[in-house]
Amino acid sequence: MTMVNTTAQADNAENVLSPDAEEQAAAEAHVVSFQTTPERYRHWSIGIDGPVATLTMAVAEDGGLVPGYALKLNSYDLGVDIELYDAVQRLRFEHPEVRSVVITGGLDKVFCAGANIRMLASSSHAWKVNFCKFTNETRNGIEDATANSGQRYLAAVNGTASGGGYELALACEQILLVDDGSSAVSLPELPLLGVLPGTGGLTRIVDKRHVRRDLADVFATLPEGVRGETAARWRLIDESVPRNAFSERVRELAEEAAATSARPAEGAGIALPTLQRDIAEAEVRYRYVRATLDRDEGTVSVTVSGPDEAADPSLEALHRQGSDYWTLAMTRELDDLILHLRTNELELGTWLLRTEGDATRVLAHDQMLIDNSGDWLANEVLHYLKRTLKRLDVTSRSLIALIEPGSCFAGSLLELALAADRSYMLDGVFEDTAVEDSDDAAPPAAIIVTALNDGLLPMGNDLSRLGTRFFGQDDAVQQVKKRLGEAMSAAEALEFGLVTFGPDDLDWEDEVRLAVEERASFSPDALTGLEANYRFAGPETVETKIFGRLTAWQNWIFNRPNASGADGALRRFGTGQRATFDRKRV
Amino acid sequence: MTMVNTTAQADNAENVLSPDAEEQAAAEAHVVSFQTTPERYRHWSIGIDGPVATLTMAVAEDGGLVPGYALKLNSYDLGVDIELYDAVQRLRFEHPEVRSVVITGGLDKVFCAGANIRMLASSSHAWKVNFCKFTNETRNGIEDATANSGQRYLAAVNGTASGGGYELALACEQILLVDDGSSAVSLPELPLLGVLPGTGGLTRIVDKRHVRRDLADVFATLPEGVRGETAARWRLIDESVPRNAFSERVRELAEEAAATSARPAEGAGIALPTLQRDIAEAEVRYRYVRATLDRDEGTVSVTVSGPDEAADPSLEALHRQGSDYWTLAMTRELDDLILHLRTNELELGTWLLRTEGDATRVLAHDQMLIDNSGDWLANEVLHYLKRTLKRLDVTSRSLIALIEPGSCFAGSLLELALAADRSYMLDGVFEDTAVEDSDDAAPPAAIIVTALNDGLLPMGNDLSRLGTRFFGQDDAVQQVKKRLGEAMSAAEALEFGLVTFGPDDLDWEDEVRLAVEERASFSPDALTGLEANYRFAGPETVETKIFGRLTAWQNWIFNRPNASGADGALRRFGTGQRATFDRKRV
Repeated sequence: MTMVNTTAQADNAENVLSPDAEEQAAAEAHVVSFQTTPERYRHWSIGIDGPVATLTMAVAEDGGLVPGYALKLNSYDLGVDIELYDAVQRLRFEHPEVRSVVITGGLDKVFCAGANIRMLASSSHAWKVNFCKFTNETRNGIEDATANSGQRYLAAVNGTASGGGYELALACEQILLVDDGSSAVSLPELPLLGVLPGTGGLTRIVDKRHVRRDLADVFATLPEGVRGETAARWRLIDESVPRNAFSERVRELAEEAAATSARPAEGAGIALPTLQRDIAEAEVRYRYVRATLDRDEGTVSVTVSGPDEAADPSLEALHRQGSDYWTLAMTRELDDLILHLRTNELELGTWLLRTEGDATRVLAHDQMLIDNSGDWLANEVLHYLKRTLKRLDVTSRSLIALIEPGSCFAGSLLELALAADRSYMLDGVFEDTAVEDSDDAAPPAAIIVTALNDGLLPMGNDLSRLGTRFFGQDDAVQQVKKRLGEAMSAAEALEFGLVTFGPDDLDWEDEVRLAVEERASFSPDALTGLEANYRFAGPETVETKIFGRLTAWQNWIFNRPNASGADGALRRFGTGQRATFDRKRV
Repeated sequence: MTMVNTTAQADNAENVLSPDAEEQAAAEAHVVSFQTTPERYRHWSIGIDGPVATLTMAVAEDGGLVPGYALKLNSYDLGVDIELYDAVQRLRFEHPEVRSVVITGGLDKVFCAGANIRMLASSSHAWKVNFCKFTNETRNGIEDATANSGQRYLAAVNGTASGGGYELALACEQILLVDDGSSAVSLPELPLLGVLPGTGGLTRIVDKRHVRRDLADVFATLPEGVRGETAARWRLIDESVPRNAFSERVRELAEEAAATSARPAEGAGIALPTLQRDIAEAEVRYRYVRATLDRDEGTVSVTVSGPDEAADPSLEALHRQGSDYWTLAMTRELDDLILHLRTNELELGTWLLRTEGDATRVLAHDQMLIDNSGDWLANEVLHYLKRTLKRLDVTSRSLIALIEPGSCFAGSLLELALAADRSYMLDGVFEDTAVEDSDDAAPPAAIIVTALNDGLLPMGNDLSRLGTRFFGQDDAVQQVKKRLGEAMSAAEALEFGLVTFGPDDLDWEDEVRLAVEERASFSPDALTGLEANYRFAGPETVETKIFGRLTAWQNWIFNRPNASGADGALRRFGTGQRATFDRKRV
């Protein structure tokens, strides 16, 4: 088995700049790594001054992840956003002292020009969709840090913020725009590119910032955007500040935000070293998470292991071990695997989710997090687990949980089964292992629902996965809650509606195989649409609107000749030629 | 000016059956009329027995609206659904005595096979999207009749209900399925066609019927569907009933529903005669609504007239005049115009909305509806107006309200301006008319907000248009509510945020012209996506999820080669060949 270090591959990709569009597809096919460290950043820098951190964006024009475009005017591609994601994560884990974060631009006159248009124009549909999803998740993460880590984000828009640049600002709690007669915020996607602002802009404008819908409409038709007091009056920004007073006002507001932050100030941060992983043709292996890729079947078997026998599930151990502590290590690995598979393995459409290990050790680690929610690090770990599970919810792959003897679908790990589109739980044991009475002969599988499943790991719709599963069936939830902490057999899990199927040893292999084959026979697009609709019953939030409504419309538009055709607006941008539109409104 | 009777054209289209796909586009280009009467139905029949009406579907195979397909097995096309829409409307207005409605199938062994697949496969994208929108609106109308007219719908599924057939049942309050060992409910779109159940199925299953999402997943993968007690246990139906007890049980439940209906039993129905309209190349003219079509500009100017001077705004007049009463007549005309333009004038992307008349007469008619909400007919008129305005909200055209002297944007008609994406209100008068002091010289325009705007005409998100406009700005709403019933000038309307722009006579023409030209220069697709996102701030409901999330995903899927390509599932269906899929998951 040949092990490949994919970080090196991505590094290579970063350093090649070529205008040849034909290399695009090949370049996309390179393995993208989501691992980086501040020392390797090419586009962002982190400055920390007391309780205030500053993230400065100064994109290297020649630092594109894929050849074929120059990242001018602080425009970004996936590689730029991978650094931002890394920076946001590190601030949360490595810097407990940071209580507010300023995002600002490091170039003259421009804050951020949004997603690079040549990159978008030359990318495949799947690449565009994946890119938008990840950037959306990163911006949701910024809002999560503000809401749940007490790291309150402030956008210091010190030049023009257009498109995704303004959408980045929208993810911050406050937006300050420099008033210099030229700097503006804008969403020029409609007039210039014939697509939507696809990183939450349309949703956050009306649903978060409460901009009136008619002003929002006008705003989105102005390629030059809106400046100064008008921008403030329309609620597009919070304050318009003269350039000579700008940095002082930013500092003032950042310190105010820091002062009122709920982030506990004690303690030292923990390091997030680069994950150790081995990637081979048919396997991705971390310490607690491993994936087996079956390209014929179109599946990935993901197995998440519970804590080792020696693991110490104490708060002290968490602080001492840091990223080696089971919950955090497992979460980081799962997060990375999800991103890796989503971006690099598009044709593996079904993920089989398994766990293995001792449920009591999982629950001990969970309980520590519950008991110490006031501890900043325990809090971070819990919210990171929440975000990682949310990533699973919006992953366009069929998720099937397989609950077998030896598994530990309990508490935090039960969420994997609850996130799945369906689940199979073996009733009894695999006869061939049981009769031998060997060390492999595990007892029948059990699942355990705990308090962690009852609201501490909400989905994007703000309901627990249990609450979403039983949406409108309050009795069913109440029945389950009477059994918190108790091991449930396949028969019980079926009765309580916690698993989909409970075949015995005779039927197991056939049922699972048929499900997998069937999934592979369906239209991948229709599966994506189906799952996106079923996974989020009940209330909608800014987050579900972004991933449901906004994303779906954007995907549709990306697919239409009016945007992506040879004469479409996205392809024609910058050529001096106007797009040719099919004028039919649908 | 040549007047064309389009009803006759549609009749012609209905009677031609040809397998030649090349005629498809030409056939779609025929003007579709949404007007019909029970005497002309070819697919549905209405039977009334005391308080229970029965709508029986027996689709004429050769009765397709467009040539090229046979409507086998009670499958439907737009023409079939136009009849259903007509029947639902007539039951509400013509039959106050009807308090429950049974929908059942008139063929042997099949309730309804859903949308005709050959029709879908051969239709243009725009046709598919428009078709789905209208069928969705009709099903929402069935739910509205149940909730607000006390006409409670029951699906008597006396044979297999697949796809859109089951989705039709899902729109009913109760679903009874015959238990005969073969009849099933199913959503076979995913496995058979590679598209979504696009008429609310995915949403209603989890959000209305509260089917568990994993069972919903399994259900949508079973082309043969689910039968009998399993269907009931999964909550897909309410009852599974043996064939020999079926009609008796249906009657029993229909009578129970009728007995507990809140529909007032008094009074005689009113007739809904075919609307008088003249359609010319550049004009559509009804009594109170007229539209001027500018194909160069890509616009439609819609003008809604207020009540005549002689109009009697009393409850007695409503019952006496019936469909001639202003509010009802205007609403019917507007409803028909929206449907006509949406289906037949795809390239006219901007609608300019104007009103003309005396605001006090509009308000008198509105007040009558408010004062008599307990009267069944006044109630019907108000809910019909609500549904018609909702149709406007989901119309994929840019809506611009023009508020000029002589207009009557007050109460019910102010909703047109509030539904618009933006509004222009003239500050002052048009100087050329004012100086002449002629009869044409109207005083400056005013708008009037009334109680009708404050919740009696909710949008799909269950908020008023005012509430949606000021979502998250409660103060702004409170300020406006202090001025209920008062005429507001352009300056005041601007100050209160009720209009977007208030140019004076010098700027008016340029500003409006520029807005119209600008709109025509944008990507029609991006405009559709933008407007669909902006129009529905705030909470989501089953209705907004259907038109937002579900529809957007379905449109995306319809556009993908995996569905609509030559080798796609939709095109390959029935050929004996399997679809060829691009397996990339996005």
